[in-house]
Amino acid sequence: MEQNQESWQVAVMPGDGIGPEVMAATRHALEALPGPALVLTELGWPAHAWHRDHGEMMPADWRGQLAGYDALLLGALGDPGPSHDAQRYCLPDGVSLAPLLQLRKGLDLWACERPAVPLAGAPMPLSDPRALHTDLLVIRENSEGEYVDQGGRLAAGTPRETATQLEVFTRAGTERIIRHAFERAARRAEERRQGLRAPRYAAADGAADAAVCVVTKRNAVQYAGELWSEVFAEVAAEYPGIATHHELIDACCMKFVSQPWQFDVVVASNLHGDILTDLAAVLAGGMGVAPSANLNPADRSVPPLFEPTHGSAPDIAGADRAHPAAMLLTAAAMLEWMGEVDPVAARSAVQLQRAVAEDIAEHGMGGRGCAEVGRAVAQRIRTAGA
Amino acid sequence: MEQNQESWQVAVMPGDGIGPEVMAATRHALEALPGPALVLTELGWPAHAWHRDHGEMMPADWRGQLAGYDALLLGALGDPGPSHDAQRYCLPDGVSLAPLLQLRKGLDLWACERPAVPLAGAPMPLSDPRALHTDLLVIRENSEGEYVDQGGRLAAGTPRETATQLEVFTRAGTERIIRHAFERAARRAEERRQGLRAPRYAAADGAADAAVCVVTKRNAVQYAGELWSEVFAEVAAEYPGIATHHELIDACCMKFVSQPWQFDVVVASNLHGDILTDLAAVLAGGMGVAPSANLNPADRSVPPLFEPTHGSAPDIAGADRAHPAAMLLTAAAMLEWMGEVDPVAARSAVQLQRAVAEDIAEHGMGGRGCAEVGRAVAQRIRTAGA
Ligand SMILES: CC(C)[C@H](C(=O)O)[C@@H](O)C(=O)O
Ligand SMILES: CC(C)[C@H](C(=O)O)[C@@H](O)C(=O)O
Repeated sequence: MEQNQESWQVAVMPGDGIGPEVMAATRHALEALPGPALVLTELGWPAHAWHRDHGEMMPADWRGQLAGYDALLLGALGDPGPSHDAQRYCLPDGVSLAPLLQLRKGLDLWACERPAVPLAGAPMPLSDPRALHTDLLVIRENSEGEYVDQGGRLAAGTPRETATQLEVFTRAGTERIIRHAFERAARRAEERRQGLRAPRYAAADGAADAAVCVVTKRNAVQYAGELWSEVFAEVAAEYPGIATHHELIDACCMKFVSQPWQFDVVVASNLHGDILTDLAAVLAGGMGVAPSANLNPADRSVPPLFEPTHGSAPDIAGADRAHPAAMLLTAAAMLEWMGEVDPVAARSAVQLQRAVAEDIAEHGMGGRGCAEVGRAVAQRIRTAGA
Repeated sequence: MEQNQESWQVAVMPGDGIGPEVMAATRHALEALPGPALVLTELGWPAHAWHRDHGEMMPADWRGQLAGYDALLLGALGDPGPSHDAQRYCLPDGVSLAPLLQLRKGLDLWACERPAVPLAGAPMPLSDPRALHTDLLVIRENSEGEYVDQGGRLAAGTPRETATQLEVFTRAGTERIIRHAFERAARRAEERRQGLRAPRYAAADGAADAAVCVVTKRNAVQYAGELWSEVFAEVAAEYPGIATHHELIDACCMKFVSQPWQFDVVVASNLHGDILTDLAAVLAGGMGVAPSANLNPADRSVPPLFEPTHGSAPDIAGADRAHPAAMLLTAAAMLEWMGEVDPVAARSAVQLQRAVAEDIAEHGMGGRGCAEVGRAVAQRIRTAGA
């Protein structure tokens, strides 16, 4: 018999810019699903509005206030910046976006997962029709590396000024993310065996059924690259059924454009992963359809943070012009995570993904308002369920 | 009256893999040009063959041996790696490719220039036809930043291992590369005014006639990002006629794929530039057509290093299957640099570029041998000159 969690406590953080509208559209769709029971509590932070009233993007005891939630669902953060309407409330991007890094690091959400599967009807920038068969998953290290925020500026503003940034990679941090990538590859292989995921397109050309690619810049950023390469080889030995390859970050970016269908799971450091996931998003139909999950795969009691890869798009905020696909698919990623222990959530994740895909296949990405798309997806879910 | 340098001393470094064959094809084309007088001296290093005989990729006194050359023309370096035929002579990529960084840093060739202009007949991975109007130039910082090779591995191989990499950005180094980007943008604007360069395609949509985009990751890699942003603003103030914008590296990669025609000159750090130039190469027709120049713009007495962006492609080395376009265009970049003081060289640069473009427009990139393409381009130059 199925064991469902009675209900899931979700902290909803609409945030800035288009965040509130894509979140509202997504709530419509979530309400149309048969389950699981989600208790959605909307928080006023992190947000620029919160900053205006409190002088910071999040309350100082954000950690305490998040205790008790099972998952966090965030819309978007971001500052329009000085080039936009000067009347708008705005902050430097280092302040505006800081909560993202604070939540990821503060909660030790060390794995960031960003899949790229092109959606029919969404923009496809590549001309090679094989790109439509792309089905890759970037596993990004989310807690250390280039993002440790250590360094400083010596003699700032003077001719002898020197800015330093330290990158720190621990073996423990490297090993856990690489192992997680292999676990995900194994799961994807299993899904393929069960017919739940399309076979690897590249397999027709002799590629393996499952593969993990590790990305470094070991020919120029040597110590980090060596550590990653060595740990990768050690962990790979535990997964003999999974093929492995190595790419340098520059060549990997190139191949994401020239032959993305060759990749299965890709594991990369914080900065490399940041770059690769933006590229992956473009391949899959643009930032408008790219979901992302920040998790602690070793500890389900830590609430994961689900957020679209896109920013707050201040230029169209409030105009009902944003497409909520990325937010909808981010909510589906949350349901997928819940689905690891809750079968109702697992089925709802598939339903929501299917409704979004069908909606975009039928209507494309333009021409409708954000709320309208939310209602249409909700209606499609209800009809399919009836 | 034209003042031509009597002759130019060029150190030719064919290197490894496909290096020798693309270099041979390029020499054919250079010989067909009416001038300038190039004295081409072929060196046996840097190369794997040299390493086999001497235990290092270059002689210890490489610096002394390069004194007296006006320019360095390199084919390709690279190690086939363990996945290739184990009988082949091979080195870890950190050794194999080290001379590139040694030459760039050792000679303080602090500016790397990599243009991207799609060639008709070469592969175009993007489906948007506007991408054919791309005409961008990446100016990559080539002497510091993420590539300073400082750091290490604490307690290597143990569970508490920690690898560190220091990034070091000096104000002086940042300022000179940013100023060089503005100088190049000003020159490109002048070329457009003179009808020597197509008008900016994006200008039809209201974009400025010349623009410099600075790339950082200032929302996560703060100290470097702040220094770059501040120096950029200071230098930009000296060039009021040139438009400016800022992109985060992740978003910039995305936009290179989704709207590359929006860019003019792009200035970026060593690693960001590395990544962006691989992407730019793909846009322009692949690594097979991407030239690159490493220069010290402040001191013409330092011999610049010209090299294709591609690697040594060991899988097709020696098979006469490599297309020499990137090497030919790299030689043209060398002639362009000579052309700054030597009008004959300037005209030859244009001739060579035109011959390559026409050859590819007529024959595409496949189906012919490397030597055959070299002869065809040489023949085309001779015919045009006759
Ligand atoms: C906003 C920024 C700090 C963030 C990152 O670099 O991780 C964003 O680009 C992302 O990919 O989620
Ligand atoms: C070989 C490597 C060290 C080099 C670099 O990263 O600069 C290469 O990728 C390039 O772009 O010329």
